[in-house]
Amino acid sequence: MKGRVVFSLLFAALWLTGRAQQDSPAFQPEMEARIVSGRDDGRFVSSLGVVHNRLKRIRPAQAFREDMTAGEMKVWQEEVRAAMKELMHFPQNTGPVEARRISVAPRDGYVVEKWEIFPGEEVALPFLVLLPEGYDEGKKLPTVLCIPGSGSTKEAIAGEEAVYPKLGGGGNRDKAAMALHYVKAGYVAVAVDNPAAGEMCDLERYTGKGYDYDIVARYLLETGWSYLGYTAWLDQQVLEWMKSRPYVNRERIVVSGFSLGTEPLMVLGVLDTSIYAFVYNDFLCRTKERMEVMTYPGTNGYRPFPNSIRHLIPGFLCHFDFPDLVAALAPRYVICTEGGMDRDFGMIKKAFQLAGHPERFVFHHYPRFSESESRTYLERLPEGIDRSTFFRLANVDPPMHYFKKEWVFPWLDEVISY
Amino acid sequence: MKGRVVFSLLFAALWLTGRAQQDSPAFQPEMEARIVSGRDDGRFVSSLGVVHNRLKRIRPAQAFREDMTAGEMKVWQEEVRAAMKELMHFPQNTGPVEARRISVAPRDGYVVEKWEIFPGEEVALPFLVLLPEGYDEGKKLPTVLCIPGSGSTKEAIAGEEAVYPKLGGGGNRDKAAMALHYVKAGYVAVAVDNPAAGEMCDLERYTGKGYDYDIVARYLLETGWSYLGYTAWLDQQVLEWMKSRPYVNRERIVVSGFSLGTEPLMVLGVLDTSIYAFVYNDFLCRTKERMEVMTYPGTNGYRPFPNSIRHLIPGFLCHFDFPDLVAALAPRYVICTEGGMDRDFGMIKKAFQLAGHPERFVFHHYPRFSESESRTYLERLPEGIDRSTFFRLANVDPPMHYFKKEWVFPWLDEVISY
Repeated sequence: MKGRVVFSLLFAALWLTGRAQQDSPAFQPEMEARIVSGRDDGRFVSSLGVVHNRLKRIRPAQAFREDMTAGEMKVWQEEVRAAMKELMHFPQNTGPVEARRISVAPRDGYVVEKWEIFPGEEVALPFLVLLPEGYDEGKKLPTVLCIPGSGSTKEAIAGEEAVYPKLGGGGNRDKAAMALHYVKAGYVAVAVDNPAAGEMCDLERYTGKGYDYDIVARYLLETGWSYLGYTAWLDQQVLEWMKSRPYVNRERIVVSGFSLGTEPLMVLGVLDTSIYAFVYNDFLCRTKERMEVMTYPGTNGYRPFPNSIRHLIPGFLCHFDFPDLVAALAPRYVICTEGGMDRDFGMIKKAFQLAGHPERFVFHHYPRFSESESRTYLERLPEGIDRSTFFRLANVDPPMHYFKKEWVFPWLDEVISY
Repeated sequence: MKGRVVFSLLFAALWLTGRAQQDSPAFQPEMEARIVSGRDDGRFVSSLGVVHNRLKRIRPAQAFREDMTAGEMKVWQEEVRAAMKELMHFPQNTGPVEARRISVAPRDGYVVEKWEIFPGEEVALPFLVLLPEGYDEGKKLPTVLCIPGSGSTKEAIAGEEAVYPKLGGGGNRDKAAMALHYVKAGYVAVAVDNPAAGEMCDLERYTGKGYDYDIVARYLLETGWSYLGYTAWLDQQVLEWMKSRPYVNRERIVVSGFSLGTEPLMVLGVLDTSIYAFVYNDFLCRTKERMEVMTYPGTNGYRPFPNSIRHLIPGFLCHFDFPDLVAALAPRYVICTEGGMDRDFGMIKKAFQLAGHPERFVFHHYPRFSESESRTYLERLPEGIDRSTFFRLANVDPPMHYFKKEWVFPWLDEVISY
């Protein structure tokens, strides 16, 4: 019947277009911003009304509770870890993986090594290791796992040439090459690709078109896994390999995630308590709330589709949301560099206070929202908004989304020295 | 970070376009039809290569086994039922639902009643009941639950006017109005909508555009449910209501699914052993095999995206595929009206033989493939094909997809009389 769908929808579309001239109230998006029942009994006939309302009624089982005691918080963190383990479906008993160094290239003040490891039965996973001068003098160095954002690659964040001429996504080197910035600051930097992107892409290497993350996500979902689960599993294999390197200071491992890369950052952080610090380079928001409020329809009558299915982890929102996961990282060091809602930062601050180290959580708003008068303060976003309104109310300045080295290095250099 | 995605992808796209002129082998779809490793160790760097290969290695746990004994088959059917229960996530302890008759309208030789029932906390579910003349004379009548296909509605299959002028999707009344055909043949016919379609749509009622099934599917998936799970659950509530009606012969309940409607048909059939017969009006195929072989890229370099996420049930393909489910309906009466691969029908025939009633499974190919010489016989479809090749090799004739009353009634009238 799958084939039928294309045909039938086309058919229906044509048929409906044929009727579109007929009587029925003209469509006014502003009148339909919110999803409401319209019935006296409050029930919904509209399926979207039902599932939207159902989502709103769900109280995430492992959400952070501000009334927790320090002891209860420790228990809660274990519950978060257990739920995350369930949701991520990492393969069992895969043990240490084989590794092979593919190349070594000297650069100005550092060395770039390319490695590949072989987790699972069918994966060959390549990544880059940027080593600062003196890495081989027996001193153990702080090491940063760098996870890029959408459309970017390990080469782009390392300031290297794309593997295939048509691939890239590097953008402005100064604002995008986080791994390069880390190695120049004296850190060992390990740069990975996200699945379906960069060297892990399919035919985009020939066409140069945007990466098709969704088809990879879909295959994974069909078999009960997810794009984030697969991504975090690959990243964890690299993390384990890092711990085995002679020059890596295992007490000073940092995970730095940009944009999409902040998702595996949170997963690794919750699952691996040996990680020392986290650079969360994106704005912070509640995905569930966002799905609940961003319902303002387009002129075509369709409401905004929640982000791509690469972000879909079945059941995830029944357990927690992103701010809960950042709170669960306490009392380890965390910096959020691109703001969000003060409500969420207030909650995370409480978690770090409870964990006995309020000073270990630092956050910065986008410059445009740095003055407290310039920000919006809400306990709950209003329903019926569109994407740009969401960004405004969540204090987000999309064009200013880049690796904030101006915030990261002063903070990280100090934190690492403790 | 969700917001970032849109922005970053756009950014990447622009950036990549900028490089698209550069050197790198020209893209030739025919050279990339199959997904291959290209490495001596057979491993994949391409994420799609990994997940595609992973899907191929999965052996569905509850697939039909031709070497089963009659006794083993009964055990297997229970295993299929248990796995289906797990996958469908029906809400627990929802008990009998309230029902309300909304309207009654006399028609030529039958009556159309509109009802609504209230399953769960927020649903009001409307459906149509077509009653043949004499339904109230105390005789219990065979009753058919009719589930429409994509883009269609309960009104369209009942031959009624659309609830909203801009909705419809009825197409040719003679070829689409299955519920109308059933009531005219003396059956009680119950017509439902699929979620997100017809009266259960959102703003399509104003715009007349194609139904946005995917946003409803996405909300369900986020909370650990699925479009099919939700659809089958609603349909089961209607089925239970049907059983409580005085004029319904509970020993002669039939489920008739067209296209998309065959999916809930299979779910209900597996879960509810009291259903007497099934009209499967679509071609039959193996979704998993289809995902494995339909990899021929478009000229843009993207491979066909597996059907819409409305068909996504996380983990489903690890348990069984559609032909296994039809086999699990044995020894109840089943007719498949639009063919598929003889391999699959051969397997289903074996199941009915094992169950002691080979005669209770009937199937017809599309007219174009009715002559055995006109069909393709394959044990396994070749990898690297496109959609039209898939249809050809699976003996599918898309333009001839309609309710096959010419096959259904001679067969159904006979089996009902047993």
